[in-house]
Amino acid sequence: MISVNEDYLKLRGSYLFSEIGKRVNAYAAAHPEKSIIRLGIGDVTRPLPPVVIDALHKAVDEMANEDTFRGYAPDLGYEFLRSAIAEWDYKKRGCDISPDEIFVSDGAKSDSGNIQEIFGRGCKVAVCDPVYPVYVDTNVMSGRAGTYIEETGMWDNIIYMPCTKDNGFAPCLPKEVPDLIYLCFPNNPTGATITKSELQKWVDYANKNGSVILYDAAYEAYITEEDVPHSIYECEGARECAIELHSFSKNAGFTGLRLGYTVIPKSLVRDGVMLHSLWARRHGTKYNGAPYIVQRAGEAIYSEEGQAQIKETVDYYMRNARIILKGLHGAGYEVSGGVNAPYIWMKTPFKLKSWDYFDSLLSQANVVGTPGVGFGPSGEGYFRLTAFGKYENTVMAINRIRSI
Amino acid sequence: MISVNEDYLKLRGSYLFSEIGKRVNAYAAAHPEKSIIRLGIGDVTRPLPPVVIDALHKAVDEMANEDTFRGYAPDLGYEFLRSAIAEWDYKKRGCDISPDEIFVSDGAKSDSGNIQEIFGRGCKVAVCDPVYPVYVDTNVMSGRAGTYIEETGMWDNIIYMPCTKDNGFAPCLPKEVPDLIYLCFPNNPTGATITKSELQKWVDYANKNGSVILYDAAYEAYITEEDVPHSIYECEGARECAIELHSFSKNAGFTGLRLGYTVIPKSLVRDGVMLHSLWARRHGTKYNGAPYIVQRAGEAIYSEEGQAQIKETVDYYMRNARIILKGLHGAGYEVSGGVNAPYIWMKTPFKLKSWDYFDSLLSQANVVGTPGVGFGPSGEGYFRLTAFGKYENTVMAINRIRSI
Repeated sequence: MISVNEDYLKLRGSYLFSEIGKRVNAYAAAHPEKSIIRLGIGDVTRPLPPVVIDALHKAVDEMANEDTFRGYAPDLGYEFLRSAIAEWDYKKRGCDISPDEIFVSDGAKSDSGNIQEIFGRGCKVAVCDPVYPVYVDTNVMSGRAGTYIEETGMWDNIIYMPCTKDNGFAPCLPKEVPDLIYLCFPNNPTGATITKSELQKWVDYANKNGSVILYDAAYEAYITEEDVPHSIYECEGARECAIELHSFSKNAGFTGLRLGYTVIPKSLVRDGVMLHSLWARRHGTKYNGAPYIVQRAGEAIYSEEGQAQIKETVDYYMRNARIILKGLHGAGYEVSGGVNAPYIWMKTPFKLKSWDYFDSLLSQANVVGTPGVGFGPSGEGYFRLTAFGKYENTVMAINRIRSI
Repeated sequence: MISVNEDYLKLRGSYLFSEIGKRVNAYAAAHPEKSIIRLGIGDVTRPLPPVVIDALHKAVDEMANEDTFRGYAPDLGYEFLRSAIAEWDYKKRGCDISPDEIFVSDGAKSDSGNIQEIFGRGCKVAVCDPVYPVYVDTNVMSGRAGTYIEETGMWDNIIYMPCTKDNGFAPCLPKEVPDLIYLCFPNNPTGATITKSELQKWVDYANKNGSVILYDAAYEAYITEEDVPHSIYECEGARECAIELHSFSKNAGFTGLRLGYTVIPKSLVRDGVMLHSLWARRHGTKYNGAPYIVQRAGEAIYSEEGQAQIKETVDYYMRNARIILKGLHGAGYEVSGGVNAPYIWMKTPFKLKSWDYFDSLLSQANVVGTPGVGFGPSGEGYFRLTAFGKYENTVMAINRIRSI
């Protein structure tokens, strides 16, 4: 008898950002005269850097000529890109990662959603609370989450690690030992981060207990402080316990171009199996590589000129972050994040629930943010604003919020 | 206790085309002076059509400007592309498919690998034998295949539908009713196809039994005969039982650009659930859209000029197909396919096993093909050649094969 994936049916409502999109579209349709400023979804607004544009045009021209045309890409990604990543993102930072430990993909969302698939369905998962919804939803879809408990807003087979004002929005080591630990620093959604010595504790904990850390470093380009690690492989022993996920979306503006990579060191072995070989098998069987032209675009940021250009973009967004932080703080709001991350985490005024604040901000200020509770129960009463808007819009949005 | 996905460990050796790649690379390294002609993997060799190149350049320029820059794409793909697909691939053929039943993706390999995920793990799967390995391997990875039986070369929980010389390489309706039926016409690897009235029997069978047909139409652009359907939705009742997978790889040369789409009619309901909504949820949670520039490239083939240009490419490859067919037939080989498909299915000479013939052809003629047994046990003693090579190489390859 045919059946559908029953784990899919357990999912709660729709994906957070789809729900936001629906509410914003409904409001916009009802009030076509209003100019809505979107600081909700973490989508970038700056155009692609010139080095990337040049690389794309050049690669497109190669595809027009039979002598330089490229068909299927190598399973793990082109050597030119993997070597550039190994050199610039790892070797220059003193991390020991070789090109063939790097898997190029169409982005960190796909990778962070698919990576759980190489693990057993019985693995116990720990996530920060609040958390990027993809980590939880994809484990729900694979049957690892258990049952959703309406009263708590939690899945009963997931270990939630609260990130609250009390712990500076950085989780404590869990008492019940998880098999898989999702960490994201600088953090989405809170914008918080941890120091290298704090991260070392997680690596030691994972190595002691046999856990695997799934480390999402999508926002590392936004780090401004010295003692904040850009990669988990800066920590000793991380090659034995950590998988790292990277994105080209937030540093180089590739949200619409799609490129990311995942690192699985060959020394990471669990259950007697190299995780690297399982992920290679998944890539080879269910994926066919990122577009050649996009891989050339990614390569372009790994040069002095490319790094200078992406720094310019990051600086643009971080100016927005300062405007949001200062503007809201000055108006008496409780805000954090925004120093090593493009996200600002604000407490809602008057103890409003996150979605109530979302609706009121949308209708009163025509500003879109992301309800904190959408990221998990500890996010209730919080609200995420992103620094990825245009400068003028960001200034206007903060003025509007201040004036209500 | 942490564990890895035990279903992954059941997989046999490496993915077929990775294995071929390894053997060819080993031979090439040992004999650097030899010129190897690759008619193995179904990768195209013609450059992208001019309309596609123009669309790419134009879209890249849009990404360079803040007013026209595009970030995250809509979940299902851009409206401009989905509308063009609905118009050209369906409405013009009298098929009733609306744009919002079309899901744009990074290619048919990903889609055909991921689509099983929306179904229950207990579903019984039927595949043609021989078959595109992705259908089987991804069901092995999801625990639906059972145990591999060394003696038969088959998984004991999969229904194999033999495609042999006796049935003209088109499967018979299975006696044991499957929940999921993978069909691919024109077929990879045999190049065979079926008429519309034959396909109608499959649609009727599925509707009668509640099965779902996963119809891979990746090669429809190669159809030359009148009574062969381009889409399963040309059959009555297919909206109630069929999902259709499409690729831009083989008609427009996008193997290195990555674009495909999947159609799930909203009227396709199983287990009380619209399959459309499950796939939408998967897209929204684990995927972030095909690149904007690539979606514009896809749109470009849907114009009179674009259609003329892709026809020119298809004609080029079909000339190769005729050369392979005629050349091998004239030399006494038993060959089929190659009339509505870019694949030629040949019986190995002297009853050689497929991999033995692969090795001997590689070393004696320096020609790479694909061992038929790599596609399933009924492929043993067969060999697949593709028409996707360059014309001159194809002529040379056939001359070399004829001369050994």
